[in-house]
Amino acid sequence: MVLLDGKKLAQKILGALRQEIAESKKTLRLAAIVVGENAVVNKFVEQKKKAACSVGIEVRVFPFPAAITTNELRKRLAEIVHETRNTGVIVQLPLPSHINKQYILNAVVPEKDVDVLSGRAIGNVVVGKWPILPPVAGAIKAFFEEYGIAYQKKRIVVVGKGSLVGRPVALWLLGEEGTVSVLDKETEAPGAVLAQADIIISGIGKPGFITGEMVKKGAVVVDAGTSESEGKVVGDVDFDSVAPKASYITPVPGGIGPLTVAILLQNVLTLASRR
Amino acid sequence: MVLLDGKKLAQKILGALRQEIAESKKTLRLAAIVVGENAVVNKFVEQKKKAACSVGIEVRVFPFPAAITTNELRKRLAEIVHETRNTGVIVQLPLPSHINKQYILNAVVPEKDVDVLSGRAIGNVVVGKWPILPPVAGAIKAFFEEYGIAYQKKRIVVVGKGSLVGRPVALWLLGEEGTVSVLDKETEAPGAVLAQADIIISGIGKPGFITGEMVKKGAVVVDAGTSESEGKVVGDVDFDSVAPKASYITPVPGGIGPLTVAILLQNVLTLASRR
Repeated sequence: MVLLDGKKLAQKILGALRQEIAESKKTLRLAAIVVGENAVVNKFVEQKKKAACSVGIEVRVFPFPAAITTNELRKRLAEIVHETRNTGVIVQLPLPSHINKQYILNAVVPEKDVDVLSGRAIGNVVVGKWPILPPVAGAIKAFFEEYGIAYQKKRIVVVGKGSLVGRPVALWLLGEEGTVSVLDKETEAPGAVLAQADIIISGIGKPGFITGEMVKKGAVVVDAGTSESEGKVVGDVDFDSVAPKASYITPVPGGIGPLTVAILLQNVLTLASRR
Repeated sequence: MVLLDGKKLAQKILGALRQEIAESKKTLRLAAIVVGENAVVNKFVEQKKKAACSVGIEVRVFPFPAAITTNELRKRLAEIVHETRNTGVIVQLPLPSHINKQYILNAVVPEKDVDVLSGRAIGNVVVGKWPILPPVAGAIKAFFEEYGIAYQKKRIVVVGKGSLVGRPVALWLLGEEGTVSVLDKETEAPGAVLAQADIIISGIGKPGFITGEMVKKGAVVVDAGTSESEGKVVGDVDFDSVAPKASYITPVPGGIGPLTVAILLQNVLTLASRR
């Protein structure tokens, strides 16, 4: 069993990115919209800031009060998107529940949508005409390439249909060769589908959802689930029972998380380079 | 075994549509871009014309020579899309191979894209903010509703990843509850995945690809494959061996084909009514 080391690969990608950015002589700024106060949100933003700083991307946080209306936020966001100096824009999720999330996300033009969460950017990815992938999909692809894991023509099972993991990963794989199955929390007997998987990618947000007896011997297991448990971020995979059967497996933390941040920053440069 | 009668359901939908259009007092015109001469293309256009005429939608065919360049076609298409009288616009496929297909399809604004083939319209469907479905997906949904076939929380297998059947059907199902698996021609031993399916939707364009021994007893089988064989359109399903095991099955012809045309015309009214 090989551990897919997200910290190490993130450092490698960030190192190359630092050099590319220096050589490009571009001034890159990632605008991060943060609504309300939330310990988890703040932690995610801090991680992005630290990594961005290390490669020479400025992160500018635009904080808004939790009580802001959807219309007011959309208006302010449109101004931030319009600002030339902001070469990439992210809306830190989750947003307060009274906000119309997708309406807000759609205000980010595809050319600055480094998270690929607007309808237009997603459509561009689906029709195969876009230079970046959603960060989680890009991170998983980077793992496969770094560790020489063949994923074309394989049987891949994606667990969850959420907008941050399951959906973007499924959309990416629909454009590749092979078999992709997508489960959700309504799937009865998920084990029957999982047992056939060469590769499992989980992002359902249920700690311990994937257990050893569901996994085929030699499977590749990528845990992109994020739940909070006692102040810590935990994944979907019951590591102790799954790891002995897996050929490759991501740890949580230190797996898909840091790598996703590195790919997000790579997306900032890629989109800025198109202009 | 129940035959899913696409002709009959199409007539029912067209009958209701005729009345709705009459009551709406809207003038609807579907612009159909046809590039080059092709017997199959002409036949599809004629079917759409006939059905449209029966409900009070004008179809205006815009023919272009097969040798037209991508840039010239895109320019002419943009003018047709811009024309207020054209309330819906379709680009009849296939296009000649020298044409950049997706670049052409992206020239149709989502508000007139009744086939849902532009990147923007597809993105709108994926993020769940769009009043229409791609016609084949809408047709399959109409079958399920008409015949009382429960599809939520089921195990559905989509065969093929093409832009006209597999991809749009998969995108629709990603927004619904349950398990969706998508196979392609690179899938090894597709029978193992198909054997678990409650519902099979095939659009891989390989005559006889789905045979009886691949299908679970009682499965619902929707054949949306279209291949040409001796001048006739044939599906993917080996009807004689599959039908005895299926609970519901579409015939070819007379199954998904006529129903897809009816849903396309319903999309014309739905999009025009938003304005």
